[in-house]
Amino acid sequence: MRLLVANANTTEAITDACAAAARAAAAPGTEIIPATPRFGPAVITTRAENVIAAHALLDLLAEQAGQVDAVLLAVSHDTALDAARQIMPCPVVGMTEAACLTACMLGGRFGLVTFGSLEMYRELIARYGLAERLVDIIAVNASAPEAVADPDSVGTKVLAAAKALAAEGANAVVLAGAALAGFDNRLQAACPVALLDGMACGVRMAELLVSLRLPRAQAGSYAPPKGRMGLGISPGLAALLRGDT
Amino acid sequence: MRLLVANANTTEAITDACAAAARAAAAPGTEIIPATPRFGPAVITTRAENVIAAHALLDLLAEQAGQVDAVLLAVSHDTALDAARQIMPCPVVGMTEAACLTACMLGGRFGLVTFGSLEMYRELIARYGLAERLVDIIAVNASAPEAVADPDSVGTKVLAAAKALAAEGANAVVLAGAALAGFDNRLQAACPVALLDGMACGVRMAELLVSLRLPRAQAGSYAPPKGRMGLGISPGLAALLRGDT
Amino acid sequence: MRLLVANANTTEAITDACAAAARAAAAPGTEIIPATPRFGPAVITTRAENVIAAHALLDLLAEQAGQVDAVLLAVSHDTALDAARQIMPCPVVGMTEAACLTACMLGGRFGLVTFGSLEMYRELIARYGLAERLVDIIAVNASAPEAVADPDSVGTKVLAAAKALAAEGANAVVLAGAALAGFDNRLQAACPVALLDGMACGVRMAELLVSLRLPRAQAGSYAPPKGRMGLGISPGLAALLRGDT
Amino acid sequence: MRLLVANANTTEAITDACAAAARAAAAPGTEIIPATPRFGPAVITTRAENVIAAHALLDLLAEQAGQVDAVLLAVSHDTALDAARQIMPCPVVGMTEAACLTACMLGGRFGLVTFGSLEMYRELIARYGLAERLVDIIAVNASAPEAVADPDSVGTKVLAAAKALAAEGANAVVLAGAALAGFDNRLQAACPVALLDGMACGVRMAELLVSLRLPRAQAGSYAPPKGRMGLGISPGLAALLRGDT
Amino acid sequence: MRLLVANANTTEAITDACAAAARAAAAPGTEIIPATPRFGPAVITTRAENVIAAHALLDLLAEQAGQVDAVLLAVSHDTALDAARQIMPCPVVGMTEAACLTACMLGGRFGLVTFGSLEMYRELIARYGLAERLVDIIAVNASAPEAVADPDSVGTKVLAAAKALAAEGANAVVLAGAALAGFDNRLQAACPVALLDGMACGVRMAELLVSLRLPRAQAGSYAPPKGRMGLGISPGLAALLRGDT
Amino acid sequence: MRLLVANANTTEAITDACAAAARAAAAPGTEIIPATPRFGPAVITTRAENVIAAHALLDLLAEQAGQVDAVLLAVSHDTALDAARQIMPCPVVGMTEAACLTACMLGGRFGLVTFGSLEMYRELIARYGLAERLVDIIAVNASAPEAVADPDSVGTKVLAAAKALAAEGANAVVLAGAALAGFDNRLQAACPVALLDGMACGVRMAELLVSLRLPRAQAGSYAPPKGRMGLGISPGLAALLRGDT
Repeated sequence: MRLLVANANTTEAITDACAAAARAAAAPGTEIIPATPRFGPAVITTRAENVIAAHALLDLLAEQAGQVDAVLLAVSHDTALDAARQIMPCPVVGMTEAACLTACMLGGRFGLVTFGSLEMYRELIARYGLAERLVDIIAVNASAPEAVADPDSVGTKVLAAAKALAAEGANAVVLAGAALAGFDNRLQAACPVALLDGMACGVRMAELLVSLRLPRAQAGSYAPPKGRMGLGISPGLAALLRGDT
Repeated sequence: MRLLVANANTTEAITDACAAAARAAAAPGTEIIPATPRFGPAVITTRAENVIAAHALLDLLAEQAGQVDAVLLAVSHDTALDAARQIMPCPVVGMTEAACLTACMLGGRFGLVTFGSLEMYRELIARYGLAERLVDIIAVNASAPEAVADPDSVGTKVLAAAKALAAEGANAVVLAGAALAGFDNRLQAACPVALLDGMACGVRMAELLVSLRLPRAQAGSYAPPKGRMGLGISPGLAALLRGDT
Repeated sequence: MRLLVANANTTEAITDACAAAARAAAAPGTEIIPATPRFGPAVITTRAENVIAAHALLDLLAEQAGQVDAVLLAVSHDTALDAARQIMPCPVVGMTEAACLTACMLGGRFGLVTFGSLEMYRELIARYGLAERLVDIIAVNASAPEAVADPDSVGTKVLAAAKALAAEGANAVVLAGAALAGFDNRLQAACPVALLDGMACGVRMAELLVSLRLPRAQAGSYAPPKGRMGLGISPGLAALLRGDT
Repeated sequence: MRLLVANANTTEAITDACAAAARAAAAPGTEIIPATPRFGPAVITTRAENVIAAHALLDLLAEQAGQVDAVLLAVSHDTALDAARQIMPCPVVGMTEAACLTACMLGGRFGLVTFGSLEMYRELIARYGLAERLVDIIAVNASAPEAVADPDSVGTKVLAAAKALAAEGANAVVLAGAALAGFDNRLQAACPVALLDGMACGVRMAELLVSLRLPRAQAGSYAPPKGRMGLGISPGLAALLRGDT
Repeated sequence: MRLLVANANTTEAITDACAAAARAAAAPGTEIIPATPRFGPAVITTRAENVIAAHALLDLLAEQAGQVDAVLLAVSHDTALDAARQIMPCPVVGMTEAACLTACMLGGRFGLVTFGSLEMYRELIARYGLAERLVDIIAVNASAPEAVADPDSVGTKVLAAAKALAAEGANAVVLAGAALAGFDNRLQAACPVALLDGMACGVRMAELLVSLRLPRAQAGSYAPPKGRMGLGISPGLAALLRGDT
Repeated sequence: MRLLVANANTTEAITDACAAAARAAAAPGTEIIPATPRFGPAVITTRAENVIAAHALLDLLAEQAGQVDAVLLAVSHDTALDAARQIMPCPVVGMTEAACLTACMLGGRFGLVTFGSLEMYRELIARYGLAERLVDIIAVNASAPEAVADPDSVGTKVLAAAKALAAEGANAVVLAGAALAGFDNRLQAACPVALLDGMACGVRMAELLVSLRLPRAQAGSYAPPKGRMGLGISPGLAALLRGDT
């Protein structure tokens, strides 16, 4: 199967890192197709950037509609996930959603560790209807560049956060944010509960959905758009909105 | 005060209608500035259109940042509301949010009538944390063109829906959707509970926020962006993301 | 418009202070009519006092029914709010409700700071269906007399509480309690998020409701009483219960 | 033990009926002390009446403080329950609360049948934190006088409502409202799930609390008032607010 | 009445202690019938043990069906409570459920103190639909043997936990776990809110249910099993599943 | 990988059918190991049977601990899921949980169709913290034998239920119950939203969890039992409780 790993940032280096993580996680036979939007924020950290990136992501996906078997959103905010599901003729998975649902399958409640805005992740998990399964979110005092430059020091902080969440009752901890990729492997041995990486969970969830061969919705708010018109929308996206076949 | 009435669709006729409704509702001294996005869907009815329109709306607002005293989103999906609050140096109000909060001030629970996707409105109200105040949503079997062509017939359906919601316990009914503008006046006399129009409520809420002279957040997820970079973002929006002063 | 600022305590000094705050917040053309109940607690701080004051407040409002355009309950417990809405022929607003709904319009979640019983405010916000929007409540270790005698010292404590709530995720902080009036202006410059005063928000919300000219409910639990009889009820209130016209 | 059966209405006939029901339900050794307020609504059916009755009830209880071992509020709105708990030196039970908690002990979810305002009962159960246990509320189209005049016909409606709630998943049905007293015995044989009468449940719950000899709260919002002053409050109630010993 | 006090552990000493506590709490005329399962864990502390004990408990109850007037589950996990209610022709009460519902009748919210797994109790209270009434759970760092060997030291920890919960807003504290039996009497004088023991509450709740003479459900998920077959089920339990009369 | 498909009923024919369904759904390389408990109900339909089957299932799993790579509970009640996760050294998946989480990944809300007790499934989904994602549950008026004897007629009923759920807002429908196996394929073409079969989803979710190589919890309520003793527990299960290595 062909799995589109769609970054929502315009930073190619993040796309490359995500593609590498996806390849490492994928089953044999899963081809990883990395993609980066034409426009939008370099790195999403705020509400406004997430909105711009959402459009950019749909724009990017539209180019690939019909050419891939599934999509994994390689962005921890799961940017534009619902709209992507509506327009694409294949399954679409969000990396943080995938990690949270995987955490659910381990039983009990989970925690989440991030560098970024705690509130945006809290809202995301509430939108997924998973607030009751969430112990808490801890925003570690560190930045993505620090994570690259000094992974030991940042790892110590992440591990402390994960252990604190486990002590509060978490049976698994989701590491949210591209900069936390790989920290699950680095820290797992020292952590009393499972650490979940969104890229690994997301690749496998995408494979799962493809294997189930579920049909696309024909009614309701996820049914494909039809006859929708607009201005200044890229040709690919405009064609999906019109429902061209 | 100068109130930007920002449509999120690219249909000028809707902007004009909203501006007229806003002018009718505004206090003396409130100048209505209508605006229509440069790009995006003609009329938002689906998830994907709402995402594209969200970008278009931020783009539109960025042009006006600093030149208006408040913004009213003239779109019943309250498109991009949170991100607009983050980037704009003035209050931003969503028309459906404004109607729902007004309904809260009448006491008890409220209902919502729309033509469109019931699920998107249900999610919106859940995101506002107002699910407990919502009796139910009824999607009337009619379309915007029908509402224009045959307002009596459509009004009969809307009134029946509002009465049904009142019988279920609603103490007010929000009419959501541009095509329902004016139906509050048309139907109120026959309805046992208040009918709320988002444009009227929104204009007054915007005036209220301006009068309170509240400061902009300096911390947290609504603090203004600073130093955020990207590609292919319009100059005005890019300047707001960089935090230019 | 004539706005009744109805204290629920029998302490005239509080009524005077609230009236002054209301006048400072009001739009030109809004006349503030202060009122104090004939009976009831000097200052409401407990559950039982709130119950007695609720009756006293209805008694007070009944005298003014038909003579004012709106009512603002000048008591942070929003005492008897729902019943007041039922009997009065004009809009009725609670000061804490108004501040909480204003906070909602800034986006995200809010916190609340008070001197008094934390649990009574938690229950109030839960009754408003706003628990999901509430970060937390902090009861500052201070009393109303201390706030008057040593506002600097008490202000330091209130500011610390507001900052702590902001750090937990609050995008606005409601100051609940008459003794906290004016602390929003005093502390705002040093606080990273908006501080909301119930009197200011309440006056503006009352003006908003008057401007919308919404009808009174004709059905349901907020419809005016009709034919209700009783013993030992003051003439004005008894007339409202009977539905005299 | 001496159990005060406190009506919150001023209709003596209801007090008498409740006292009779309480005597029928009580254990040997439980003496029923009926009481009727000095003032207030003849029969509570609206929000405003409930507020007036709440004061009247505290006034009534204050006269009995120290002379009874427990209080049962003989009013289906559980009027002033929390405040009564705060001021009384003995356990206080609400009849609807008692029936709902008894329903919980049968397992699963329960329904509620009433003649009166559905919304007021919905709010009551939500305040008890029991919304998840509630299947639904059905307001039967009948009145208290009809229930007395034509119990067969009204009973048929009540039974139909109870059966409908059972079919929706209720494992017990609470009959709320003085006018429904006795309908549990009349209809139980024909109903597939238990019908719960608030007076019977309430008397037994009051006996239970007395038998447990639990101490009064010394801290928090249920601690006895101390040093609270006011105007025009009856001597007994004023003494309790001052905390006279 | 004959009250079966059914331990779910196979440790006879716990059964004896529970029976003694039950006798101390019971009304005159209540005969306590202690019982211990034939098989299962010595002491339930984990999820798996609770599952095995659930079967053992049903097995034990089946032997007594028809010979007792009520059942009290003498195990703080309220093991198999719902299934026990389904198969037994008499009321069945769980000791922690009984304490929580008693706490509700004191008003406000409650806390819970235990030695054991915090998460299992959190799930239990959520299943009861009482999460909104729960302030928090504190798992004291102590073990059952320590509680026996050094009750003063363990009591100090339990009291500190109870006081912390009261300071957070709890108006009552449930002591959950057989090893905490008797600590309510030991610590009550020093605690500002009521401490609730599940055995005492449970005995009285069982007596209450018997006194109400409620019928068994004839429909729904608590109706008695009928015609259910299986392998290797003890004769008594098999007879109940078949619905033998 | 070796996947244990563990029936919780003692009916071998159901085990065989589930194993066939699992084989049809499995990836190449997944070996299906069917297993049937030694004791317990023939078919679980009631609360009591579910409790007995839970013990039987743990008993069955204990025999396979260490010999399989994952477990799929082939029972729509996900019997003993949490306890199985605690004792087994490999991932354990419940078929209904798997279908519900798969539904989540399609976006929006889902519905559930079953033959059996609606309330038991409602409780199950609430325990999973997924109540907000659930539109409704419909219990079709049919039985397992009827489904086998007259699949066309039963299929018509199931399809009508699924369509009704889609009309209420469901974007996917979970078919819960062994007797509904295969109806997804039979009815999908006529249904506007995806029909989800627990066996297919469960097999794939088990494969996913194995591929992620997550560690077992070392702390909290899912950590392996250690040193737990009991009476009359089968040797394999007793060894797991002791934590023998």
